[in-house]
Amino acid sequence: MFIAKVVGNVWATRKHPSLEGKKLMLICPVDGMKGTRSGPVQLAIDHSMDAGPGDTVLIIDEGSSCRQMMGAGKGPTRTIIAGIVDSVSAGNKTKKYH
Amino acid sequence: MFIAKVVGNVWATRKHPSLEGKKLMLICPVDGMKGTRSGPVQLAIDHSMDAGPGDTVLIIDEGSSCRQMMGAGKGPTRTIIAGIVDSVSAGNKTKKYH
Amino acid sequence: MFIAKVVGNVWATRKHPSLEGKKLMLICPVDGMKGTRSGPVQLAIDHSMDAGPGDTVLIIDEGSSCRQMMGAGKGPTRTIIAGIVDSVSAGNKTKKYH
Amino acid sequence: MFIAKVVGNVWATRKHPSLEGKKLMLICPVDGMKGTRSGPVQLAIDHSMDAGPGDTVLIIDEGSSCRQMMGAGKGPTRTIIAGIVDSVSAGNKTKKYH
Amino acid sequence: MFIAKVVGNVWATRKHPSLEGKKLMLICPVDGMKGTRSGPVQLAIDHSMDAGPGDTVLIIDEGSSCRQMMGAGKGPTRTIIAGIVDSVSAGNKTKKYH
Repeated sequence: MFIAKVVGNVWATRKHPSLEGKKLMLICPVDGMKGTRSGPVQLAIDHSMDAGPGDTVLIIDEGSSCRQMMGAGKGPTRTIIAGIVDSVSAGNKTKKYH
Repeated sequence: MFIAKVVGNVWATRKHPSLEGKKLMLICPVDGMKGTRSGPVQLAIDHSMDAGPGDTVLIIDEGSSCRQMMGAGKGPTRTIIAGIVDSVSAGNKTKKYH
Repeated sequence: MFIAKVVGNVWATRKHPSLEGKKLMLICPVDGMKGTRSGPVQLAIDHSMDAGPGDTVLIIDEGSSCRQMMGAGKGPTRTIIAGIVDSVSAGNKTKKYH
Repeated sequence: MFIAKVVGNVWATRKHPSLEGKKLMLICPVDGMKGTRSGPVQLAIDHSMDAGPGDTVLIIDEGSSCRQMMGAGKGPTRTIIAGIVDSVSAGNKTKKYH
Repeated sequence: MFIAKVVGNVWATRKHPSLEGKKLMLICPVDGMKGTRSGPVQLAIDHSMDAGPGDTVLIIDEGSSCRQMMGAGKGPTRTIIAGIVDSVSAGNKTKKYH
């Protein structure tokens, strides 16, 4: 699991039927306290978090987790937005994201 | 999950029977808005998306997802093309891929 | 699995119901004997270890492991704190962490 | 999944009983059209492909896939050689491997 | 799967009950024929191989594999030592590790 910044929406007319109507977003892993990028851009499904570009989000990258959040026993999926980060704190320092 | 550009076809006469007749493609992860390469070349199965070299595609890299898309309860597989990307947008910018 | 240093707490009001009340922590993989950083910051759940920023911890990054530690048959999760590291030793050298 | 070059055989007298008699090979991921190295050396099982050092092979790195190819419901394993690459093509260019 | 050198023992008084009595070791992936380091230090369980610092070992990093080797249907775990490497050979070159 990691935190990431939403950087864009992905549009795909031709896709597997189970992805029909799903919000597909590009996300970029970030480094918590600094907010700097920490890994390559990836693709995540936003099933119910209503995230948008600029938001910092909780990402879970595991197939079973996704299928459970989407309420589907089946369906090809692996990476999902599981929450919107408000802030990160360490000792007496806090970085606000929302 | 990530988006990637299809860079080639892979041919293999000798392979596991469950891969017989499957379209094997080399894909290279790309960085959404910029379209630049963001990771090493990998191998993916195109089960039903009819992708070709030059297309930008949705990739799901999880075994269970692949087996579900291929309609097979069994079979060795992990990485699959799950859609063809039309465009990526962030704010008022759009990058067209298709 | 790897060892990591806890670097902060993550706060998220809006999140999947199964994460409600869970302690979310930012962790940074470290290099055992030297204690230097060895990978990008990630997110982990502290279900029962009562770890805090500065602690060096055992991390297991697998969905089934997490669900078992959390005593939940279901729930989206992948990375969990499974212990607090006291020390690492190699030959007659020891590095104390706790 | 990825393609890789076989770089050596690994010998281990002391190993888990389920690995007894299995061919263990060192493989190095390669970059398709160029054939250059694209990742760190890894370990793979050759169950039935009869690959040798110098061959370019199809690799599937997922536990369930391996257990299915090995015809075993159980057994610790994750990375397996699933085929021998003949060639890779992109547009009117072809790189022959076999 | 990969081969790795054991670089140390990890001690943790406070840990998940299923890890009680397990030997926790720091391992560093190595590059077969050269024996040079090829990835970040990780944590592995030595269930029955009796490995020690300096040994080169077979590593399987998959949860189900670990649970099977440990003879446990349950328990949080992902990375395990599955054998002790004697040597690696390629063509007429051999590197002895044991």
